[in-house]
Amino acid sequence: MLTEQQLSAALDTALETARRGHRGANPLVGACVLDASGSLITTGFHAGAGNPHAEIEALRRLGRISRQRASELTMVVTLEPCNHTGRTGPCSHAIAQAGIGRVHYAMADPTAAASGGADYLRQAGVEVSQAQAGTALQELNHRWLRAKKQSRPFITVKTAQSLDGRVNAPDGSSQWITSAESRVHAHGLRSRVDAIVVGTNTVVHDNPRLNARTKDGAALPKQPHRLVMGLRELPTGLALEFDEHFEQVRTRDVHELVRRAAELGYGHLLIEGGSTIASAFISADLADEIYCYQAPLIIGAGDSSVNIAGTQTLGDARQYRLDAYSTETLGRLGPDVMMHLEPLPQP
Amino acid sequence: MLTEQQLSAALDTALETARRGHRGANPLVGACVLDASGSLITTGFHAGAGNPHAEIEALRRLGRISRQRASELTMVVTLEPCNHTGRTGPCSHAIAQAGIGRVHYAMADPTAAASGGADYLRQAGVEVSQAQAGTALQELNHRWLRAKKQSRPFITVKTAQSLDGRVNAPDGSSQWITSAESRVHAHGLRSRVDAIVVGTNTVVHDNPRLNARTKDGAALPKQPHRLVMGLRELPTGLALEFDEHFEQVRTRDVHELVRRAAELGYGHLLIEGGSTIASAFISADLADEIYCYQAPLIIGAGDSSVNIAGTQTLGDARQYRLDAYSTETLGRLGPDVMMHLEPLPQP
Repeated sequence: MLTEQQLSAALDTALETARRGHRGANPLVGACVLDASGSLITTGFHAGAGNPHAEIEALRRLGRISRQRASELTMVVTLEPCNHTGRTGPCSHAIAQAGIGRVHYAMADPTAAASGGADYLRQAGVEVSQAQAGTALQELNHRWLRAKKQSRPFITVKTAQSLDGRVNAPDGSSQWITSAESRVHAHGLRSRVDAIVVGTNTVVHDNPRLNARTKDGAALPKQPHRLVMGLRELPTGLALEFDEHFEQVRTRDVHELVRRAAELGYGHLLIEGGSTIASAFISADLADEIYCYQAPLIIGAGDSSVNIAGTQTLGDARQYRLDAYSTETLGRLGPDVMMHLEPLPQP
Repeated sequence: MLTEQQLSAALDTALETARRGHRGANPLVGACVLDASGSLITTGFHAGAGNPHAEIEALRRLGRISRQRASELTMVVTLEPCNHTGRTGPCSHAIAQAGIGRVHYAMADPTAAASGGADYLRQAGVEVSQAQAGTALQELNHRWLRAKKQSRPFITVKTAQSLDGRVNAPDGSSQWITSAESRVHAHGLRSRVDAIVVGTNTVVHDNPRLNARTKDGAALPKQPHRLVMGLRELPTGLALEFDEHFEQVRTRDVHELVRRAAELGYGHLLIEGGSTIASAFISADLADEIYCYQAPLIIGAGDSSVNIAGTQTLGDARQYRLDAYSTETLGRLGPDVMMHLEPLPQP
């Protein structure tokens, strides 16, 4: 019998493990497995949509064990194991099938599609208990939960700016403000999301391909779909491919764009710009996380990265924080600084 | 006899040690002491103007040793030992007096006041050799050297801004954009400099005391002098003390301000703002280092931290880098990000 202290410490370990992943269509989740004496056997985390869930990863690392041995093990998970076949099979089934004796979890799965895992496990003869989730566990995925409640994709906003917060010079020049290393990182973001969103002006002005590439220009294995937002008619002969994974959403309303993305089944959007589009998402409090790449340049004139009409006083400012639960929070990318932020949790 | 390799490795150690200090009226300097076999005995660095020089610090850490033992030791220093009585005595005399057998240094002292240390040491019977300074040693104090060549103080510019590079909201509100931790750090900067520079508008608008305080409001041991720049007549009844360490320099020309500061004997200035003043120093390439405190707020409107008239295109941008040789380069101050930058070295 594990003590409350052992379970609580294991939950802390699971939380630490969860931080190694990336939020997106799926939340951050961590799991760990204890033996009957409370010793930590293994851990697992969810690296992001399309990858194995944390529980499956922990089971994989556990390797082949006898059912007798499995029945003595406790799996501790930050989130209720899913009961749903998505891009991966249901964790509840995999845990029961592996013969794990007990599951202890913190947050209940809030989604209609994936909930019911605890009930399934109980019916399958697994002992199930739920912990009180502390502040850290509640805040781990607070914006992901909000996106789910709003039945919309998780939204990442990317900005690339100079030290003085500019995204271009007065003549509109803006290419390569940030470094090659930042661009490689941003292409990594592209390959994690379901779709990239840009405005029609950015398409016409920058003529981007909007695919995900390595630093050598090779295509990454997973490519995002492309949503172009705006009323402007796009010219022909653009670098952007108008294939079945491309759509122009003819609106200037970010809420309308988000509804269409949800209809298309996208769980994770990356808002790439321009600054008008990024500002509209931030202004509407639809930025669930921000990756800000900041180059050590001072331009001294040109557009600021974010412009919000109606801001009058400092109290109107949007409050963020460096993502407290990501392991990728603040760092250097070549000469640039990378900041990963999330909106301050609402009390 | 130490080998070239031993001396070169010791110079690297001295350089690493130098990084623990702060540039200002004085450059970063590091020293280390080797015995006859090449073993590292001790190190020293210069913590900033008013503190012992690196060589003196290394001698202090060496403690009391016999003259016989001292004669077997080699001191390796990044910069030629000074020959000048400033706030501290001449290092050349102290080294000779301690009986150190050999001094190996890299950069020659470029200042008329402090040079001649190597000659003095030779005359005192100390063996002296000079290393070829590599890129790192040349870049360690490149902006300090430039300030010296221009016969002006070393200039630190401080900016405090939101994530989108704003220093206020449209209604002018700007108090407490950055955190209490950032403000404590900025007060530490104040206590390292000879004088703070602000514009008359900042004095009238913010009514600052411009002294250096701990987080509890107590005065730090070393207080900066105060220079107020601008033509505007200051009202009476301000928080700022108009004592003998205060002067209003009636100019809008940063070069004129800098000349007056040099006349007053200041070796290190901190430009605190407002943004017009900071921008003027940056625009004139008089910012030898920048401390940028950035709060995770998005204001979305208001003044940008730096405004440079005449910027047209991205090629006009001023190029900086995170200070490659400071140990205080990029970090967190409470919720804020602190960046310590210097102008890119000119090739």
